[in-house]
Amino acid sequence: MSKESQGKSEVLQSLRWENGALSLLDQRLLPEEIVYLKLTTSQDVWEAIRELKVRGAPAIGIAAAYGVVLGVADFDGTMDQWVSEVNRHADYLATSRPTAVNLFWALDRIKVRADALASSGMKTEEAVQALLAEAQLIQAEDEATNRRIGEHALTLFEDGMGVLTHCNAGGLATAKYGTALAPFYLALEQGIHLKVFADETRPVLQGARLTAFELQQAGVDVTLICDNMAGHVMSKGWIQAVIVGTDRVAANGDVANKIGTYSVAVLAKAHNIPFYVACPLSTIDLSTPTGADIPIEERHSDEITVGFGKRTAPQGIAVYNPAFDITPNELVTAIITEKGIIKAPYFESLRQLFD
Amino acid sequence: MSKESQGKSEVLQSLRWENGALSLLDQRLLPEEIVYLKLTTSQDVWEAIRELKVRGAPAIGIAAAYGVVLGVADFDGTMDQWVSEVNRHADYLATSRPTAVNLFWALDRIKVRADALASSGMKTEEAVQALLAEAQLIQAEDEATNRRIGEHALTLFEDGMGVLTHCNAGGLATAKYGTALAPFYLALEQGIHLKVFADETRPVLQGARLTAFELQQAGVDVTLICDNMAGHVMSKGWIQAVIVGTDRVAANGDVANKIGTYSVAVLAKAHNIPFYVACPLSTIDLSTPTGADIPIEERHSDEITVGFGKRTAPQGIAVYNPAFDITPNELVTAIITEKGIIKAPYFESLRQLFD
Repeated sequence: MSKESQGKSEVLQSLRWENGALSLLDQRLLPEEIVYLKLTTSQDVWEAIRELKVRGAPAIGIAAAYGVVLGVADFDGTMDQWVSEVNRHADYLATSRPTAVNLFWALDRIKVRADALASSGMKTEEAVQALLAEAQLIQAEDEATNRRIGEHALTLFEDGMGVLTHCNAGGLATAKYGTALAPFYLALEQGIHLKVFADETRPVLQGARLTAFELQQAGVDVTLICDNMAGHVMSKGWIQAVIVGTDRVAANGDVANKIGTYSVAVLAKAHNIPFYVACPLSTIDLSTPTGADIPIEERHSDEITVGFGKRTAPQGIAVYNPAFDITPNELVTAIITEKGIIKAPYFESLRQLFD
Repeated sequence: MSKESQGKSEVLQSLRWENGALSLLDQRLLPEEIVYLKLTTSQDVWEAIRELKVRGAPAIGIAAAYGVVLGVADFDGTMDQWVSEVNRHADYLATSRPTAVNLFWALDRIKVRADALASSGMKTEEAVQALLAEAQLIQAEDEATNRRIGEHALTLFEDGMGVLTHCNAGGLATAKYGTALAPFYLALEQGIHLKVFADETRPVLQGARLTAFELQQAGVDVTLICDNMAGHVMSKGWIQAVIVGTDRVAANGDVANKIGTYSVAVLAKAHNIPFYVACPLSTIDLSTPTGADIPIEERHSDEITVGFGKRTAPQGIAVYNPAFDITPNELVTAIITEKGIIKAPYFESLRQLFD
């Protein structure tokens, strides 16, 4: 593993395959340093996932797929042995973060592909190239999905608009572009000027550390504010739309997302500002009837009281620290997917998406 | 000057006169350490104000008044010379923080009192005691005002209610009790249980560092949340009232207060929760027609980007950092003063207060 620093790029990529290795942006060092790690073994990738050098479900899945390729790239033996090695590295990488669904999904896809390659009578050297192609396809599909989301979202925006976003649903969590941030990158490509406001997103500050950072790197016009400034900024007439990502959309269109999203949605409604949610179809869960059926994870009080290495609240203080909140469907103007823009009534419109 | 640590007290006092010296809580060390400084000279007090060991306009004014007393306590000379000394120390203390209005007001009151004492034919030893009595009266009046505000506010609350507050309008900024926090202390005295939620109040975290701290010290049931959790907590039905302080109330009832207050007021309205503002009459400025006439101070971006002692946003990022916002009168359910509870139409009801 080696480190190389990098200057300004057009759209920052969380990871990319380069000269037979996985080049991966070390997100732990953001926003202070932009360092791409060169990962050459499956163990390198395992550690990168475990140690949060890469984060965001889609990005983790892609990294793990490349990790298997690295594990079997120099294998010398029969195809049967090669398939066993693929499975061994995949099972090993699956232990890096036991709760990331995209991780298991990507590793299963790689295993299935390896089985198919073995059946085709390929040699191991060719099979490695074909497996690499599969990992690259997973990445390309994620990028294409996000780009389509961005294209649909961009039809809702006009040159000169102010747009507020919360948390980080950006390129750093995905192959490229992200979901809620995708239209900002496409607007830049097309010369459409959007003035983006990024909530810093307490307690973990994904908005300050990641969204502000990746948009700044790309050259998007972005202004950082504290979460409690959103209403004030809206009242000044500076915001014409809000767009956020989501962790899960229920069958009725209720949206679970980072804590604070609900407050932003209420403020948007009070100021007659449309509130958009951007996500791939894979985030819509028709088996969850409503937002009330989505459990809200509560996290440790330390995130609030000693969030950045310095104590900012008294010892022993009671703290409530929910990681997510639910935005009810009536506050959601539209849900933007790779298949288009979905509007209320959501129970019907979301179901039609999957028909 | 010496230091002494102190354990739990009923209601934490920002300062008090004790054994011929000013005992002053060093607010720079909060919430990690409770240290009372023993100030024995006017220079001690000047430095304490300058270095923000004491903050909050009323508390600064009171400290300065005691500072003059310390300056002339051991004076040996004629009464004319004594009055000159009072003026010299007062003018010196006025240079500690040039923008605090209460500072000048308190020092002027002390000077006027010294003049009156000289005219009365008193000796310097007696005059020192009378000047000390004046400083103690300033403190006692502030405490009494806040207590009356608390009594009026408490009539709006019932046992078992959840009440949200933003920033710090507490005892630490005043002689005792504060304004918005006063009803919480009185509820505790009367055995009325209120469940208080304190917004941490980015960027300077007065809610986390001061409000959570002083309420915890007094034994009030207080839970700390991030600003962006206020809407979520309201949606859970945990909040029955909001109460905040204010820096200035305009003649039409528009309220300037710490940034984020406006968002809280909008969220309260959306959840049918009353939104109360607590302040002494001295904060109501009939010469300011509306909130639009109150200038909003913008502060340095460092408060947001390196606020926790560690950089949490990219270098060079654009930041918007307003220190205050305006809550329009239609979102204010009532304004609670030492003279009672004022309701809309505010233009008329506020004017009547001063008749």
